[in-house]
Amino acid sequence: MSQSDACVFCKIASGRIPCLKVYEDDAALAFLDIGPLAEGHLLLVPKDHCERLEEMPGDLLGRLMQPVGRLARALMAVTGTGDYNLLCNTGRAAGQAVMHVHFHLIPRTPGDALGYRWPAGKYEPGRGEEIAERFVRALRTV
Amino acid sequence: MSQSDACVFCKIASGRIPCLKVYEDDAALAFLDIGPLAEGHLLLVPKDHCERLEEMPGDLLGRLMQPVGRLARALMAVTGTGDYNLLCNTGRAAGQAVMHVHFHLIPRTPGDALGYRWPAGKYEPGRGEEIAERFVRALRTV
Repeated sequence: MSQSDACVFCKIASGRIPCLKVYEDDAALAFLDIGPLAEGHLLLVPKDHCERLEEMPGDLLGRLMQPVGRLARALMAVTGTGDYNLLCNTGRAAGQAVMHVHFHLIPRTPGDALGYRWPAGKYEPGRGEEIAERFVRALRTV
Repeated sequence: MSQSDACVFCKIASGRIPCLKVYEDDAALAFLDIGPLAEGHLLLVPKDHCERLEEMPGDLLGRLMQPVGRLARALMAVTGTGDYNLLCNTGRAAGQAVMHVHFHLIPRTPGDALGYRWPAGKYEPGRGEEIAERFVRALRTV
């Protein structure tokens, strides 16, 4: 297992820092966020250190995602809500506070003060097509 | 392939409604959100109809996640930012507007007006342990 000595989630994954663990498998650990946005707010992290989401090989990310359905169903059972957000912030401007990939699983109830800000815009004519074409070109090289 | 006649993302996946497609494989489709929060805001959807995230079998979710790293790197190349959110809203109270599983990939820049609201709380002594134990018990049955 590849871990970073300075990383708090690596220390949690290796048991050097305690956590309120709810789930563990070979690749992943899930535990309560100690600064919860709502009761039952979970973090799902890979055991291997990986700073940013796009650095995770697809198969590792796929393994990390295996328990998401069960965790969500457990969250629904524990909190009594049927709604939730799954969120991964990558980079400081995106809200990533710990530089080890982690997914938030956040229970939601109608009228809570949570959620993503949603000032939806739209593309000027032709601009969306131009951006899409740039993606297609970029995907040939990444 | 299992699709729903009434579902707009099924219609997009089958080509009955056009989209600004950037990526496609056997299991997944990625295209520009027509109501973008920022230029380059992508949606990643499974081709098979699945209303809610926790209904997706782990292997299908794993397949859906395979291109996330490449899509994120392309997003960084196209938009020039290094930061982004990956977000899946499940249920109306969580902001799910189309009842077909979809992941938002949202480019972020310092000082933008986006992001998740973050009024972090904390657990009273003993409460976190109690919630964690409920999760452990619930996970035996889900």
